[in-house]
Amino acid sequence: MIPTDLLRRKRDGEQLSDSDISAFLAAYTRGEVPDYQMAAMAMAIYFRGLDAQELGAWTRAMLHSGDVLDLTDIPGLKVDKHSTGGVGDKISLPLAPLVAACGVAVPMISGRGLGHTGGTLDKLESIPGFSVNLDVETYRRLVRDVGACLIGQTARLAPADKKLYALRDVTCTVESIPLISSSIMSKKLAEGIDGLVLDVKFGSGAFMRDFDRAALLAETMVGIGRSFGKQVVALLTDMDQPLGRAVGNALEVIESVEILQGKGPKDIRELTLALGAEMLVLGGATTDLADARRRLEGAIADGSGLRKFEQICEAQGGDPRALTDWSRLPTARLTVEVLAPMSGHVTSIQTDEVGRAAMLLGAGRQRVDDVVDPAVGVLLHKRVGDAVREGEPLATLHVNAEAPLEQSKRRLVDAFRIGPERPEARPLVARRISSH
Amino acid sequence: MIPTDLLRRKRDGEQLSDSDISAFLAAYTRGEVPDYQMAAMAMAIYFRGLDAQELGAWTRAMLHSGDVLDLTDIPGLKVDKHSTGGVGDKISLPLAPLVAACGVAVPMISGRGLGHTGGTLDKLESIPGFSVNLDVETYRRLVRDVGACLIGQTARLAPADKKLYALRDVTCTVESIPLISSSIMSKKLAEGIDGLVLDVKFGSGAFMRDFDRAALLAETMVGIGRSFGKQVVALLTDMDQPLGRAVGNALEVIESVEILQGKGPKDIRELTLALGAEMLVLGGATTDLADARRRLEGAIADGSGLRKFEQICEAQGGDPRALTDWSRLPTARLTVEVLAPMSGHVTSIQTDEVGRAAMLLGAGRQRVDDVVDPAVGVLLHKRVGDAVREGEPLATLHVNAEAPLEQSKRRLVDAFRIGPERPEARPLVARRISSH
Repeated sequence: MIPTDLLRRKRDGEQLSDSDISAFLAAYTRGEVPDYQMAAMAMAIYFRGLDAQELGAWTRAMLHSGDVLDLTDIPGLKVDKHSTGGVGDKISLPLAPLVAACGVAVPMISGRGLGHTGGTLDKLESIPGFSVNLDVETYRRLVRDVGACLIGQTARLAPADKKLYALRDVTCTVESIPLISSSIMSKKLAEGIDGLVLDVKFGSGAFMRDFDRAALLAETMVGIGRSFGKQVVALLTDMDQPLGRAVGNALEVIESVEILQGKGPKDIRELTLALGAEMLVLGGATTDLADARRRLEGAIADGSGLRKFEQICEAQGGDPRALTDWSRLPTARLTVEVLAPMSGHVTSIQTDEVGRAAMLLGAGRQRVDDVVDPAVGVLLHKRVGDAVREGEPLATLHVNAEAPLEQSKRRLVDAFRIGPERPEARPLVARRISSH
Repeated sequence: MIPTDLLRRKRDGEQLSDSDISAFLAAYTRGEVPDYQMAAMAMAIYFRGLDAQELGAWTRAMLHSGDVLDLTDIPGLKVDKHSTGGVGDKISLPLAPLVAACGVAVPMISGRGLGHTGGTLDKLESIPGFSVNLDVETYRRLVRDVGACLIGQTARLAPADKKLYALRDVTCTVESIPLISSSIMSKKLAEGIDGLVLDVKFGSGAFMRDFDRAALLAETMVGIGRSFGKQVVALLTDMDQPLGRAVGNALEVIESVEILQGKGPKDIRELTLALGAEMLVLGGATTDLADARRRLEGAIADGSGLRKFEQICEAQGGDPRALTDWSRLPTARLTVEVLAPMSGHVTSIQTDEVGRAAMLLGAGRQRVDDVVDPAVGVLLHKRVGDAVREGEPLATLHVNAEAPLEQSKRRLVDAFRIGPERPEARPLVARRISSH
């Protein structure tokens, strides 16, 4: 394998063989292919893409750059959910306990927030004591005994992806569908799952704003899953406004618990049920999506979902009382209302700007090594389609000292478009793509 | 200047500003922009190109990354020639003395051979004692006093180009017209020239095989020259067979002297006169190309061109007697004839393969740090259009011990296409492009 030969062929639009790709990525992981050659390769892939054959080989090489967990000794099918990320996307928090409560094990390895998007790990860590840094044996034990475990990426899973992701970030090659899809799928396949549900977001708060690009990403990931013999379902969901009303870590824990209590915003409940139903079917609990949904609704109604969340919490070192006694969660010192500058209807919300307003308050990270403040964030009072009067609160900011409050307020006000007409409602789930 | 902002904009086909480019290249030269970001940028430029404005800024930034020589204290206009490189291209050797003999000063900074192409510096160094490593003050003095000086690139001229060229080589971004043209032009503009004649080659021995790509490269370089207020003329010339009969360093010195003696192959004489006439006009010696050509022919006929070569040789530490007493040049131990495998006409010569055959004998470099043998090489007896009988010599190899003789012979035989029909003759100069 001569790196420049591969580079030239990719640059010129020729196909790379399985063994070329495997050797190239192995050499990169060992540090024998230097960063500058991988940077050139990533940019060439940005322009030329990878075909289905190459994509399978690329994903396999990243998957096998580290450990691949084997959970076959745990009875039943294991199913995970992955979201491409958005603003206010706390779905994993009510979803994992609900699905586990319905008898399907959920081994979930999640990420942290960056830029305008939040991360499941940061939200969970706002629960006092909750640890997402468990070793693989504990993870395996909790998936078996509790039915779900939510942890962070370990250095031993897909290390090639970890290294490549950092490089892509500084070489502007993140936004490449083959590179995104192989990155996500290599990590997910390393978890030891049997099935995977993907929540692929589009709209102003999503990584892929454009619906067609998001659909292509979803199809690409489902195709990778199929080539690995895994059942994968992708739902394309609207991220043209924040999910729910809370954007901020402890605030989102509260909203997640509300869902498990049969309350909370309709869109979060709806998306939790839609994704959860797919997971129950992939996990073999039932063959029918409508039946799956009824079971999930039952686990909300009888409180078994919330009890499962408390169990998970306790098993991972967190204080389960904090889930219902919210005074045990971190609380911001100050709340500040953001008022509507005019009357009308909310016609749209620039969702990434809401995410950035929350990030500025400390709820998210500008850079990977920033520290997150679990208490702060934004609670929205108005969503797209709502009527609003001038001077009425659009949102409440939860603030601790030293945050650039005025800048955050300004971004939030500017994120709301208010007009005379009530916009047409759009479905939350726009398309479903299945591997089978 | 945030490197990722520039990378993203170039990747997305947006224009970079002059100050962006200048800051990016300055930071790269200082080592603040790492190689992996420049590698991604080079690949993005490979796909997206640079427009005229960006190209000017990119060239200017490379030019000003080091010293820019000022030769204005030397009377008259200074004119150089640059060739994109080929097989048997020894034109600089007869050309520089002839033009200097006709009164136009030639400050010439040349390169070394790599792969199948030879380099002016290697040919000159086959003259015993000849030094191409002179300091800038000596270079300036010889341009003034002798009228021509031929040296190698110094570390102080366009260091950004030196660094970037090495990176492009290992990231497969050499073949990008904006990157090639800015690389060449930044080095040439750093020489302190007033005018430049470009010999841009196309065909099987050229870096750009395709005529249209070569024409685009020529137009791009002429455009850069124009934007710097320099008069530039490019001739697009045929490199579909080696120039002349000699391929190898000392062998090419002999052939160059033959030209200055009014002998030697017609194509070399013709190209020397064509390029030299452009240089005399750019140098203000005359306004008329036909008159310029007559002057050059005069300098051949009266021996002043050869005497100028002897002067240059002596000024740069070489033995001038070696130019006419060829026993003083390095000689190979052995000559081996390569015979025609069939009768017919030479219909084409795979020129790069002739270059590689000579390289294998030691006349060129496979890698930058290989050492060249000045004595060895190839003398062609047949050129395209010549009739040939089976068993008649196609070429003579000049060999020293330990060369892979059989491999070299095989490549040479395979390089010749022999067919029944005599091919149509093609003009040596296919197109002329001028900045003014």
